[in-house]
Amino acid sequence: MPGATLLTGIGELVTLDPAHPGPLGILPDAALLEVDGRVEWTGPASAAPRDDADEVIDVEGAAVIPGFVDSHTHLVFGGDRSAEFEARMAGRPYSAGGIRSTVAATRAASDEELRRRLAGFVRELRAQGTTTFEIKSGYGLTVEDEARILRIAREVTDETTFLGAHVVPTEYADDPDAYVELVTGPMLDACAPHARWVDVFCETGAFTVPQSRRILEAGAARGLGVRVHASQLGPGDGVALAVELDAASVDHGTYLTDRDVELLAGSNTVATLLPGVEFSTRHPYPDARRLIDAGVRVALASDCNPGSSFTSSMPFCVAVAVRDMGMTVAEALRAATLGGAEALRREDVGHLRPGARADYVVLDAPSYVHLAYRPGVPLVARTHVA
Amino acid sequence: MPGATLLTGIGELVTLDPAHPGPLGILPDAALLEVDGRVEWTGPASAAPRDDADEVIDVEGAAVIPGFVDSHTHLVFGGDRSAEFEARMAGRPYSAGGIRSTVAATRAASDEELRRRLAGFVRELRAQGTTTFEIKSGYGLTVEDEARILRIAREVTDETTFLGAHVVPTEYADDPDAYVELVTGPMLDACAPHARWVDVFCETGAFTVPQSRRILEAGAARGLGVRVHASQLGPGDGVALAVELDAASVDHGTYLTDRDVELLAGSNTVATLLPGVEFSTRHPYPDARRLIDAGVRVALASDCNPGSSFTSSMPFCVAVAVRDMGMTVAEALRAATLGGAEALRREDVGHLRPGARADYVVLDAPSYVHLAYRPGVPLVARTHVA
Ligand SMILES: [Zn+2]
Ligand SMILES: [Zn+2]
Repeated sequence: MPGATLLTGIGELVTLDPAHPGPLGILPDAALLEVDGRVEWTGPASAAPRDDADEVIDVEGAAVIPGFVDSHTHLVFGGDRSAEFEARMAGRPYSAGGIRSTVAATRAASDEELRRRLAGFVRELRAQGTTTFEIKSGYGLTVEDEARILRIAREVTDETTFLGAHVVPTEYADDPDAYVELVTGPMLDACAPHARWVDVFCETGAFTVPQSRRILEAGAARGLGVRVHASQLGPGDGVALAVELDAASVDHGTYLTDRDVELLAGSNTVATLLPGVEFSTRHPYPDARRLIDAGVRVALASDCNPGSSFTSSMPFCVAVAVRDMGMTVAEALRAATLGGAEALRREDVGHLRPGARADYVVLDAPSYVHLAYRPGVPLVARTHVA
Repeated sequence: MPGATLLTGIGELVTLDPAHPGPLGILPDAALLEVDGRVEWTGPASAAPRDDADEVIDVEGAAVIPGFVDSHTHLVFGGDRSAEFEARMAGRPYSAGGIRSTVAATRAASDEELRRRLAGFVRELRAQGTTTFEIKSGYGLTVEDEARILRIAREVTDETTFLGAHVVPTEYADDPDAYVELVTGPMLDACAPHARWVDVFCETGAFTVPQSRRILEAGAARGLGVRVHASQLGPGDGVALAVELDAASVDHGTYLTDRDVELLAGSNTVATLLPGVEFSTRHPYPDARRLIDAGVRVALASDCNPGSSFTSSMPFCVAVAVRDMGMTVAEALRAATLGGAEALRREDVGHLRPGARADYVVLDAPSYVHLAYRPGVPLVARTHVA
């Protein structure tokens, strides 16, 4: 948005600017000047540079926070798995489920169908305060379908991740290494131009550590940044691999060993926790407290996908992280904004320091605390994407 | 709404009509005819009586459910307790909290201030699909303030509950029986004309069983229906008292004995569970499975209040009940609609049988299952209050 806009009457402005007080850099009775889509100035409303503004917006005491940065989603897919979810929650067996059913539906969907659904999810994200989001491939698992998913994802975000190694597709069940060959060869060739990141599901039953290493190194050699799905279902060596390869983020982290925590604390790798997964699968929640106390940087993300976590709500993730993962509200908000930006190695989002993108959310609440205090209540009055 | 409206193109219509299949009476590809604010007919869209309709609305495959019935809220109050919530979640001591701080703020608030906030909550409820809701007093604790709260509540709902016995106010701390005297005497005189129900917080630290009995019997003698807050913080005799007095509902039920469950199963008293309370206080969740398996009728409600559960979101309550209380999605939806109606002894809401109020919700989803499958996501496309 070109021009200069002054947002004023902010009851509580969360800047995450170390120049302002407390861990969240909170200013009461504040104002924010946006110039050409960037934060130019924040400070007390009484000191606002009104004369510099073409437009003045008064939010009448509302809290304003940085837009959420959702660093982990799988938003390009076909099909529906609500029946599988319902059966799982009722303790009934359900045969036709799993990632592979989404793969089949995604392959069968037209580009237009995938785009239409994605557009709906993007509206949903915005309505819930998310201003930056990552999207992974991983429901195509052929050269054409993986590239297609990333091309479509790229139309709505720069943060696209090649996850050809999401699961070994049925047609390679007998020879997973041949699939790794495909992923690191022609599939990577087709996908790298549409992706910023490479990711692997490094877990027993998915890809081994040596397979994961091959794929991540091949992606890194093509200039892609590294991220890893690991330790979702049990402890493993995925975290160590992620740290060794300087991954921007290792995601899930439900079962971390003391050694994993130590490695993460001494690394540039963010631990991205995904409370929606534990909520929707009834798995135990990861212990964010332990990570934060050890000095690990933590992000929260939705993992929005039709199988294990179909929430797109970052406020919901914040509320659950506070209830069940030992985070304070301030820590959870930080993890859902600046933490997500760190997990994407972005300097320009996740905070409202001068120079940042002016991506912010006006809450229908006097304080960010309400995001956890009022779980499930839609509190986003307005999402502004600069 | 006078006239006849045909709602058609309903992908999944949840009627809770025993004439239709399954526990929820679900019709696929359905239509609903509303005449003069009542459900006149439901059935397959192909058989819809189009000629009887003045207006036809096509919902294009969306799911339609009965409006939520939230049978337990405390929506008339002043003040804010977000700092208390934040401290509790961070494990920090907080001195000035508790119901009494809300009582002080409510007494200090003007009628206009209370009305303005209540109107905001009513908008919030509607936006989240709630079409019938109860409101309790209990933050006034003087004759004038309790009557004032009920008068204001009555402006927005018929389901008002006199809860003068919410807590013993500070000024009666040394002589709780004198407060019971006040509640059963002048306070009841002033409040009964504005209330349909009488309620007591029957729990150690609040009101004893003999005190609760006196208050409930005095209310019943004035024609008020009985409801009871009990067994929230520990087991007690509140449930037995509720059943003995034929209470419409006993609410919380976090700590129920086998004897309580047996009594409830043989009674007309609904067990109203309040998942927001356990979520926001980190208490263990009540076991809805045990109740349902024993034949107890269960309702879900928000208990929306600034202390222990500041959610107003029935979809959130449904999602948590499925995750953490052993309910299937169908059971949770029933409890949040028909269960709430039973807890208010209302025949005309909580379902979409012919003759019911045409209070329904169009979801931004193809199935009611999405209410739990997509936790935290605002899925209410439109709430219709007949
Ligand atoms: Zn994922
Ligand atoms: Zn209550």
